Amino acid sequence: MKRFALLPALLACALAARADEGMWTYDNFPSKKVQQKYKFSPDAQWLNEAQLSSVRLAGGCSGGFVSPDGLVMTNHHCAHSCIEQLSTKEKDFVAQGFYAPALENEVKCNEIELNQLVQITDVTAQIHGATQGLKPGKEFNEKRKAAMASAERDCAAGNDKLRCDVVELYHGGQYSLYKYKRFQDVRLVFAPEFAIAFFGGDPDNFNFPRYDLDVSFIRAYEDGKPARTEHYFRWSPAGAKEGDLTFVSGNPGGTDRELTMSELQYQRDIALPERLFDLAEYRGELTMFTQKSPEDYRVAEKDLFYAENSFKALKGRFEALVTPTLWNTKAARERALRTKVDARPALRKKYGSAWDDVAKALAMFKPKRKEYRYIEMGAGFNSPLYRIARDLVRGTEELQKPNEQRLREFTDGKLPQLKQRLFSKAPIYEQFEAFKLAFGLTRLREELGTDHPFVKKVLGKKSPQDLAQELVKTKLYDVKVREHLWQGGRDAVGASNDPMILLAKLVDTDARPLRQWHDEEVETLETSAAERIAAAKFDLEGKSNYPDATFTLRLSYGAVKGYEENGREVKPLTTMAGAFERATGRDPFKLPDSWVRANDNHQIDLSTPFNMCTTNDIIGGNSGSPVFDKDRQIVGLVFDGNIQSLGGDYGFDPTVNRAIAVHSAALLEALDHIYGARRIVAELKGGGGPAASGAK
Amino acid sequence: MKRFALLPALLACALAARADEGMWTYDNFPSKKVQQKYKFSPDAQWLNEAQLSSVRLAGGCSGGFVSPDGLVMTNHHCAHSCIEQLSTKEKDFVAQGFYAPALENEVKCNEIELNQLVQITDVTAQIHGATQGLKPGKEFNEKRKAAMASAERDCAAGNDKLRCDVVELYHGGQYSLYKYKRFQDVRLVFAPEFAIAFFGGDPDNFNFPRYDLDVSFIRAYEDGKPARTEHYFRWSPAGAKEGDLTFVSGNPGGTDRELTMSELQYQRDIALPERLFDLAEYRGELTMFTQKSPEDYRVAEKDLFYAENSFKALKGRFEALVTPTLWNTKAARERALRTKVDARPALRKKYGSAWDDVAKALAMFKPKRKEYRYIEMGAGFNSPLYRIARDLVRGTEELQKPNEQRLREFTDGKLPQLKQRLFSKAPIYEQFEAFKLAFGLTRLREELGTDHPFVKKVLGKKSPQDLAQELVKTKLYDVKVREHLWQGGRDAVGASNDPMILLAKLVDTDARPLRQWHDEEVETLETSAAERIAAAKFDLEGKSNYPDATFTLRLSYGAVKGYEENGREVKPLTTMAGAFERATGRDPFKLPDSWVRANDNHQIDLSTPFNMCTTNDIIGGNSGSPVFDKDRQIVGLVFDGNIQSLGGDYGFDPTVNRAIAVHSAALLEALDHIYGARRIVAELKGGGGPAASGAK
Repeated sequence: MKRFALLPALLACALAARADEGMWTYDNFPSKKVQQKYKFSPDAQWLNEAQLSSVRLAGGCSGGFVSPDGLVMTNHHCAHSCIEQLSTKEKDFVAQGFYAPALENEVKCNEIELNQLVQITDVTAQIHGATQGLKPGKEFNEKRKAAMASAERDCAAGNDKLRCDVVELYHGGQYSLYKYKRFQDVRLVFAPEFAIAFFGGDPDNFNFPRYDLDVSFIRAYEDGKPARTEHYFRWSPAGAKEGDLTFVSGNPGGTDRELTMSELQYQRDIALPERLFDLAEYRGELTMFTQKSPEDYRVAEKDLFYAENSFKALKGRFEALVTPTLWNTKAARERALRTKVDARPALRKKYGSAWDDVAKALAMFKPKRKEYRYIEMGAGFNSPLYRIARDLVRGTEELQKPNEQRLREFTDGKLPQLKQRLFSKAPIYEQFEAFKLAFGLTRLREELGTDHPFVKKVLGKKSPQDLAQELVKTKLYDVKVREHLWQGGRDAVGASNDPMILLAKLVDTDARPLRQWHDEEVETLETSAAERIAAAKFDLEGKSNYPDATFTLRLSYGAVKGYEENGREVKPLTTMAGAFERATGRDPFKLPDSWVRANDNHQIDLSTPFNMCTTNDIIGGNSGSPVFDKDRQIVGLVFDGNIQSLGGDYGFDPTVNRAIAVHSAALLEALDHIYGARRIVAELKGGGGPAASGAK
Repeated sequence: MKRFALLPALLACALAARADEGMWTYDNFPSKKVQQKYKFSPDAQWLNEAQLSSVRLAGGCSGGFVSPDGLVMTNHHCAHSCIEQLSTKEKDFVAQGFYAPALENEVKCNEIELNQLVQITDVTAQIHGATQGLKPGKEFNEKRKAAMASAERDCAAGNDKLRCDVVELYHGGQYSLYKYKRFQDVRLVFAPEFAIAFFGGDPDNFNFPRYDLDVSFIRAYEDGKPARTEHYFRWSPAGAKEGDLTFVSGNPGGTDRELTMSELQYQRDIALPERLFDLAEYRGELTMFTQKSPEDYRVAEKDLFYAENSFKALKGRFEALVTPTLWNTKAARERALRTKVDARPALRKKYGSAWDDVAKALAMFKPKRKEYRYIEMGAGFNSPLYRIARDLVRGTEELQKPNEQRLREFTDGKLPQLKQRLFSKAPIYEQFEAFKLAFGLTRLREELGTDHPFVKKVLGKKSPQDLAQELVKTKLYDVKVREHLWQGGRDAVGASNDPMILLAKLVDTDARPLRQWHDEEVETLETSAAERIAAAKFDLEGKSNYPDATFTLRLSYGAVKGYEENGREVKPLTTMAGAFERATGRDPFKLPDSWVRANDNHQIDLSTPFNMCTTNDIIGGNSGSPVFDKDRQIVGLVFDGNIQSLGGDYGFDPTVNRAIAVHSAALLEALDHIYGARRIVAELKGGGGPAASGAK
């Protein structure tokens, strides 16, 4: 029950983040706090270098430049899709690993986009100004989104190599314009075998001690050549040891630390359980699908990995929310804040009703949540083919409108990423699609009910399996067909008789009004309330805190440090020897042949530190984040958090919340002595760039 | 939000059950209330006849005698196991239905035991007396259980044809000795095709309107001949129509209406979610298993049905608990009761601490719940073969002790049912067992963790799949092997090297201490507290209420009545025509050939009432209960509750909570005009017993 012991303290000292808590924006980093605790204060130049050396994988991960020639280090699981997409029945790079011995062997990843954050601009006044004096509703929604779309378009100015996103921080208390340099030509350089990248599999996922080499190297290209990346992280010759100060720069996907109690209750009672029931069943079906044949395993194991990972992560969140200490602390904190607001008439007038408005928005959404999820969000059509059809149907329709009036995901700034996905050559497997569609359609029928008009319209007298088999006869596997429809625009899509396009059109008729209702009624009420709550906190506490994570670049600080679990000390470092001790020879505890061979030949220094845990405050999305020291030198690579960190969605407990990383020494040891990847080792050590890459 | 609107009223009038609420014991039936509302007052003779005409299927269902020759009507899903066990790859009675045209064609169901309740005796003084003055703990546990075992043994007096159970009513406020006549020779007479018994499948399960012929007929035998059953339900010539008074006599399995708030919170936050995650995943895997081949479907579909049914039922319970109105009402009710207790010093002294003691017992259990569930309850070894091995290992050990000192499930009174299960000739399918074991072992590893000593001991370096394949090499498929071990007793079992017996012995070493800790520490604290809470209620309110369900015989009253759902009126009766309208030709909405043929030939009166809903208060375990009128004539057969009834676990809402039954007219219509089962029709109508059964 120590788990959230910090929170009452937090309450007492007015939310000042202590210990190593915090996913800080680069423009509000608490260097003074770091100085107080670790006797080191990052200055503006240091922060700027770290920011520019960091990179985001737009699909949901983080990474860091590690050479002046665009080399990026990230996790294996962040490049997993690419590695699988490059594989075939004959050559399985997921199972066997991948290494490009020379530059010309680096292979393009169809769907990876990299973003390097080059500028942050505060646009709060502009966005708030657009809705000044407006009540939640249609006009509020239109004005707010138009303001965001304009800011983004003005920033990118039609240049596809720039990406500009208006980011909602502090739940709308602050809006920042994030300007990124965008890389869409990204190539795979190196990946180890899945068996060591994810050694211990789902049983060891979110566990520590750990023994994973969850790394991959990819490279950003510009104009067909390796990108010149002036800002990058050097390699630490010494690596990190217990007690060392560590920084993590990456893109935590999302946290819910500032949610109101009504939102938390909705998550605890409705959202999380429903999602978990769904994921558990999907995991069960997928597990069996992967066991049908080795080829079915190859095709589906990535999805199984994601399903298992999500299940475990969300279950950890659910378990945190049903912990009475956390709940009671949060409730007390909200009460205290509301009491303070209500005590001052001026504040009360401005902010007093905000918490009830959030609850109202949720009460409005709750009875329609399943329709929204299954019809608008597409949970009933769980397949890449459907998403392609939906993007074609809705995208060609939206492009008829001026930028400011479009749905957010089809504004000009979003089109390059949309097109990359839409025209990706990644293979799609017909019978796996049929499996996923049948699952989704069955769930759709179950959740909305056999007699729901939408279910009747979609299924008619067909079974989910029948309909799935009809849908996978679509021609959308062929990228040329997609390009033809996209270029033909609304008319071409309107004239198409492709079964998946027909489905997407059918769905859109019902989905559009749901989306409109959601955006205009629910979202505006919630947003305007959240903005007021944030303003109340700023008024009372200033901007002394960090905002909830939003999958944008954050910096956290901490140290290499163990913890206590069930009365037992967990040390912060493991060694490569440990992997051999833990191995059973059976999945998921089977080491790859390369490791067994290298060990038989005594090529590995088994005392090399392998994985480590640190007190850095991270969460999903931070995967692939560089861990570096005060000289900005790489000492590790974040790939996971411990099981105690899952509750970190709601609050950080410094006693047990830990980031898990591959130690830099193990990365080099494996590259050099197991994989013979000398070209990369040389590049990391600064001894050679891609030009010197001919020799293996 | 009307759903639990009754409860505040309940609170106001001191818990007097109004409307048609209540699962009443036969010795405390509120005839006066029925008189007030329905102008009919069942007298002692009436009640005695109804009681003796009712029957319990010991495996978890209800039924009623419907002829003087032992004929029992119950649900198809109550005899599903038997029907499946009698089937083979070549002859699938689940798919095709079963009908014994003559008495000699009736086939024995290996695992069905029937119980006819012949006597109820209050033994509260005896059981409470045994623990008088004792604190919760070891001695409390031993004395209490010895008293129960003695009472049961004295009652049955060594006669295997009698079954005596001490039943804990009002959570220990009252102990009653239920004396049953036991029938273990039970034979299958008739079952329709699964496709019509469960028409609409999982999507329509717990739905209304409905179109299911969920019936089977079985017969109790004595000395190889049909049992003479003097007390039985006659058939109503008229059947029931809207508004008619209806009685349901059956064995509701369990309700949680009197749980304390700490128990409800444990259910909401821990027990139900964990069970649901597990079930959802199992359902996913099972779904895929059944799709491997028609034979795999045949072997596993019953388990899939149970998994889906349990999932939906428990999900309904979870959803009820996260309904704030229910929660708040229950909390207010508990507060009011505790306030009343605390207001009187005498009561406060006796009962005041009871609620906190329940919470303490749960707090003690919570950190060990997974060990208890996976090790002692065997959730990690989810298979009939394991249960056989466990019964052999533990049973032969327990039989060394005097009756009063044994674990409850191995006392003399329990042995006949244990042996029936242990020596059942029901087929066990090796690869289905391997599938279930692999699932259970994987969950065991996940829930306790790879590094848990018990997990290491069981799995060693093997994968769950490996171990499962080793275990299914057991010889326990062979009933002779089981008999040999049972007869050889502890020594024979101790000497056995059968892999499943070895596993069960290994597990028992860890399971025994857990069980002992649970029974002595947790259970006694909870029981003694629950007894005090019950006593407090009796002191303040008398015995005006019914006890929570305990899978013992209860009588409920109500009427044929529709309800309102989403602002739409749901009528209380459907017709056979409706089934043909709902049919799509695809599972689970595909009617069997017999129905399609009979309809093509105009043999069916389509206007016949098919299913109906009534306000009777029922819950799982009531499946197969007869629905009868004030003349004790059959008007229907309970097979389900509506979706709104799932929250009935915690409280009854008369506006929407409904029992769902097959109408008696449809039963006759189908038997006569679709199945040509004239022998049964004649027997039901009193025109002929089994002796007159030669002619079809």
